[in-house]
Amino acid sequence: MNHIAANTDPNAYHRLTTRFARMATVEEAMSMLGWDEAAVMPDGGSAARADQLATLSGIAHGMLVEPAVADDLDAAEAHPPTSPAERRNLELMRRSHTQAVALPGDLVEALTRQASTCEKIWRAARAASDFSMAAQPLADLLALSREKAAALSAASRLAPYDALIDTYQPGITAAEITPVFTRYEAFLRTALPQVEALQANREHRTPGTAPFAITAQEALCRRLSAQAGLDYTAARLDRSTHPFCGGTPTDIRITTRYDEADFASALMGVLHETGHALYEAGLPRTHARQPVGTAAGMAAHESQSLIIEMQAARSDAYLGFLGPVLAEAFGQDPAGFTLPRLAARLRHVERSFIRVEADEMTYPAHVILRYRLEAAMIAGDLAVTDLPGAWADQLRSLLDITPPDDARGCLQDIHWYCGLFGYFPSYTLGAMAAAQLMAAARTAVPTIDAALAQGDFAPLLTWLRTNVHHHGASFGFNDLLRQATGQPLDPTAFETHLTTRYLAR
Amino acid sequence: MNHIAANTDPNAYHRLTTRFARMATVEEAMSMLGWDEAAVMPDGGSAARADQLATLSGIAHGMLVEPAVADDLDAAEAHPPTSPAERRNLELMRRSHTQAVALPGDLVEALTRQASTCEKIWRAARAASDFSMAAQPLADLLALSREKAAALSAASRLAPYDALIDTYQPGITAAEITPVFTRYEAFLRTALPQVEALQANREHRTPGTAPFAITAQEALCRRLSAQAGLDYTAARLDRSTHPFCGGTPTDIRITTRYDEADFASALMGVLHETGHALYEAGLPRTHARQPVGTAAGMAAHESQSLIIEMQAARSDAYLGFLGPVLAEAFGQDPAGFTLPRLAARLRHVERSFIRVEADEMTYPAHVILRYRLEAAMIAGDLAVTDLPGAWADQLRSLLDITPPDDARGCLQDIHWYCGLFGYFPSYTLGAMAAAQLMAAARTAVPTIDAALAQGDFAPLLTWLRTNVHHHGASFGFNDLLRQATGQPLDPTAFETHLTTRYLAR
Repeated sequence: MNHIAANTDPNAYHRLTTRFARMATVEEAMSMLGWDEAAVMPDGGSAARADQLATLSGIAHGMLVEPAVADDLDAAEAHPPTSPAERRNLELMRRSHTQAVALPGDLVEALTRQASTCEKIWRAARAASDFSMAAQPLADLLALSREKAAALSAASRLAPYDALIDTYQPGITAAEITPVFTRYEAFLRTALPQVEALQANREHRTPGTAPFAITAQEALCRRLSAQAGLDYTAARLDRSTHPFCGGTPTDIRITTRYDEADFASALMGVLHETGHALYEAGLPRTHARQPVGTAAGMAAHESQSLIIEMQAARSDAYLGFLGPVLAEAFGQDPAGFTLPRLAARLRHVERSFIRVEADEMTYPAHVILRYRLEAAMIAGDLAVTDLPGAWADQLRSLLDITPPDDARGCLQDIHWYCGLFGYFPSYTLGAMAAAQLMAAARTAVPTIDAALAQGDFAPLLTWLRTNVHHHGASFGFNDLLRQATGQPLDPTAFETHLTTRYLAR
Repeated sequence: MNHIAANTDPNAYHRLTTRFARMATVEEAMSMLGWDEAAVMPDGGSAARADQLATLSGIAHGMLVEPAVADDLDAAEAHPPTSPAERRNLELMRRSHTQAVALPGDLVEALTRQASTCEKIWRAARAASDFSMAAQPLADLLALSREKAAALSAASRLAPYDALIDTYQPGITAAEITPVFTRYEAFLRTALPQVEALQANREHRTPGTAPFAITAQEALCRRLSAQAGLDYTAARLDRSTHPFCGGTPTDIRITTRYDEADFASALMGVLHETGHALYEAGLPRTHARQPVGTAAGMAAHESQSLIIEMQAARSDAYLGFLGPVLAEAFGQDPAGFTLPRLAARLRHVERSFIRVEADEMTYPAHVILRYRLEAAMIAGDLAVTDLPGAWADQLRSLLDITPPDDARGCLQDIHWYCGLFGYFPSYTLGAMAAAQLMAAARTAVPTIDAALAQGDFAPLLTWLRTNVHHHGASFGFNDLLRQATGQPLDPTAFETHLTTRYLAR
C-alpha cells in the first residue's frame, strides 16, 4: 500500500486499535511475570525471567515502531474517529508512537544496559553507604538520560525535563509544579514547628501491644481491603519485599510485607495498594487495552492510593471504626486502640531522613528536594559528584536536618540509579490531588465520613468511579482535576487538610 | 537478500539459533502464565489470560513461519554446523518449521476454536454422563484433526496417525507400537488373574490412620522431593486441581492436590512431578532454549516421572525407608506403615474404569484401548457415534469389565475433546521405557537400591543425568533407549518388573 492510499484508508484507526490491544496484551503478560518475580519466583529463575521480560518488551516495542504504524496514524488523523474518547485514544497512540520513535534504538539499549549496571552498583554502594562507588555509573546513566530527554524534547513541544515528567504523568509541567512546591515549602516552614509543638503535649503511646500475629494481620488486611471495595474474585493479596500493585484490571495483584512488631505498616500499605487496585478495576472496560482505557498517569494513580490510605483510612471517621476492629483482630483490649493512640502511630509528624518512612506532612519536602536536584541534573546545572552536598543543603533548607551518611541521603532511593528521572514529583502531585479530590467528593457526597465511620468506602468509591476512574486517560493531570473539582492542581486543599488534621484541634 | 545469496550465507545457522531462543523465551513466558492460571489466578483473570496466551502463542508461531526462516534453513543445511548436537539442532528446527508451515492458518484457527468449544461441551457432557451431548462437537474436531494429520503426513514421510504421534514423541511409529501393545495384552491376560489370586491372600489394611493433616503432607512432599534431588532454589511446589510440572529448567513449578483421607495420592503425585522436574532441570544448559536442549518427547518425559514414582519410589527399598518417615510425619505408630500395608495402598492391582486411577499393571490396558480407538478414528475406520460401543468392547476384551456409564467410559479423559490425538501411547511407552531404563541403571550402578533404602536417589539420578537428561532431544524415542540401554523399546523389562513386583513373592 502506498503512502497516499494509507493516508485515506478508513480502516486505519481500527487497525491501530487492534495493534494497541495486542501490545497491551503483551504488557499484561509482562505485568504478571513481574508480579511472579517479586512475589513467588525462586532465585534460580532470575536470569531467565530477565530474558523473558526483555524479549516481551522488545516485542511490544517492535509492534509500536513498525513503519505501518506511522502510516496508519497519518491516515487515522486524516479521518479521525467521531467519538471524543476515540479521538483522545488516537491522540494517545500518536503520543506513544512519537515517544517510541524519538529514541534511537542504540540509546534505548545503552540506557537499559547502563540502568542495569548502575542499579547493581547502587545496591552495593547503599549497603556500604558510600556514594563514591556509584558516582561514575550514575553520571553515565545521567548522561544517557539527558540524551533521552533531549530526544523526547525534540519530538514534542516540551522542555527536556518536562518531556521526562510527561512519560510518567502527562498534562503537567515544571512551570506548573515549581510554584506549587515553592508554596508548600513556605507552608511547611510555618506549619511544621506548630505541629511539633502541639504533638509534644499529646498521647505518645502507640496502639495495642506487640507482637501482632502475622496470620491475624493478613486476615485483617484482606478483610478491610475487601470492605474498601477490592473484589477478591479478580484480585490477590500476597507478600513481597517491596509492596506494589500489579497485574491487570480483571486480575489485580497487590502485595505487602508483615512485621510482628507493627501492624500499621502492612495495614496502611495494603489500603494504599487497594487504592491503586480500585483505580485499575474501575478503568473503563469499553476501552480495555486501549491507551484511553488506562490510568491517567503516575500522579493520578498516586492520588487514588493516597485518597484511600491518607485521606480516608487515616480520617477520624475511619480510625473510630478501626479501633475496635483491631482490638478484636488481635484479641486485645479496645482501650489500647483509642483514637489518640491510633493517631500517635498513624498521624505522627516527624522530620526524618528517609522518604518512604516519612509522614504525609514532611513527605513533600523529600520530593521537593529530589525534584529540584533532578531538574538541575537534567538541565546540566548539577554534577553528579556534587549530589551529596546538594542533597544535604536542600535537606537542611527544607527540614533543618542533615543526613548522617549517604545511605540515609542520596543513596536511599533506587529511582535515579535505574534511570527514573522525572518520576519523583508524581508522589506529591498525587498527595495534593488526593486532598483536592477528597474535598470535592465531601462537598458532592455529604455521607462519605458517616460511611467511613462504619468502615464503608462505597460513597467515596462511587464518586471516584464517576469522576476519576471511568475517565481512564481521557484527561491529562490538570484537566482531570479540573473536570472533577473545577480547578487545576491547587495546593490549597492539601494545606487545608493538613491544617485540619494536625493543627485545628 | 535474494534466495541464492541466502543459500550460501554462513550466518544462517546463528540467526536461526537466535530466533529459536527468542521463540523459546516467549514460550517460557507462556509456561509461567499457564502455571499462574492453574495455581494462583483468581477467576476474574480467565478471559484476559486466554487472550495473553493466545497472543503470545501467535507471536511465537509468527516467528517460526516468517519467510526468512525457510531461507535460513536452506542456507544452514547447505553449510551445516560441525558438531553433532548442532546438526541435530538444525534437524529439529527444520522439523518444527515443517510442522508449522504444513498447517494452513485457517486450519490452525478452526482447530483452536473447535477444541475450545468441544472442551466446554465435554465438561457439561461428562457432568451429565451423556456422550450424545458431545458427539457432534467431537466429530467436528475429529474431522479437523484428520485434516491436520493429513497435512502433517503430506509434509513428512509419516503416515497420518504417525504424524500426530510424532508431534508429541518423535522417533517411534504405530508400526513399532502396535506389536508392543499386542504383546502386553497377552502378558496381562495371563498375569492379571495370577496377581489377583495372590493379592486375595495378602494384607488389605492400608497404611496409617486418616486424617493425615495437610500441612504435614505438604511438608513431607517438599522434604521428600528435595531429597529426591529437586532443588527448591530453582523450583516451587504449589496446589492445583490437576497436578502438573511446568515452568522452565531454572524455575520449575510442580503442583499437587491434597486429601486428608489419603496421603499417598499427593505424595506419589509429587514424586511423579519431581521426576518430570528432574528431567527439565537436567537438560543440557549449553543448549538452553534450543530445540536440541529440550526434552526428547512426551514418552521420554513420562519415563522420567515414572522411573521416580513407579520404579524407585514404590520399590521395596524406598518403601522400607518411607514407612518410619510417614509414621513420624503424621505422629502415628510405625507399626501402621509396614511394607505389606504400604504395598496394600501403593501396589494394589485392580481392574477399574478410570485411567488416571489405575495401577501400573492395568494402566496400559486403558492406554491400549485409547490407542486403538484413536488410530481407527484418525484412519476413518471408527465413527464418533460408535465410540461408546467400541470403548465398551475394548474394555471387556482387555480387562473383562464393562463401563457403567459414559462418564466412566469414553467421556473420562479430556484429550480427544481438546484435539489431542496421538498423545495417549506416550503414557505406556513411558512406563515401559522407565522399566527398561531402571533395569539398565541397576546393572550399571549396583548401589541404586541400597541408596533408595536410605531415601537417597542420587545414584539413580546421576545415571539418568548422564544417560537421559544430558542428551536433551539429541535422540528420538527408540534411539534414546538404544544408547542408554543397548535396545530400542523392548517391553520385556516392564513385564519382568511387574512379574518381580507382583508375582515373584
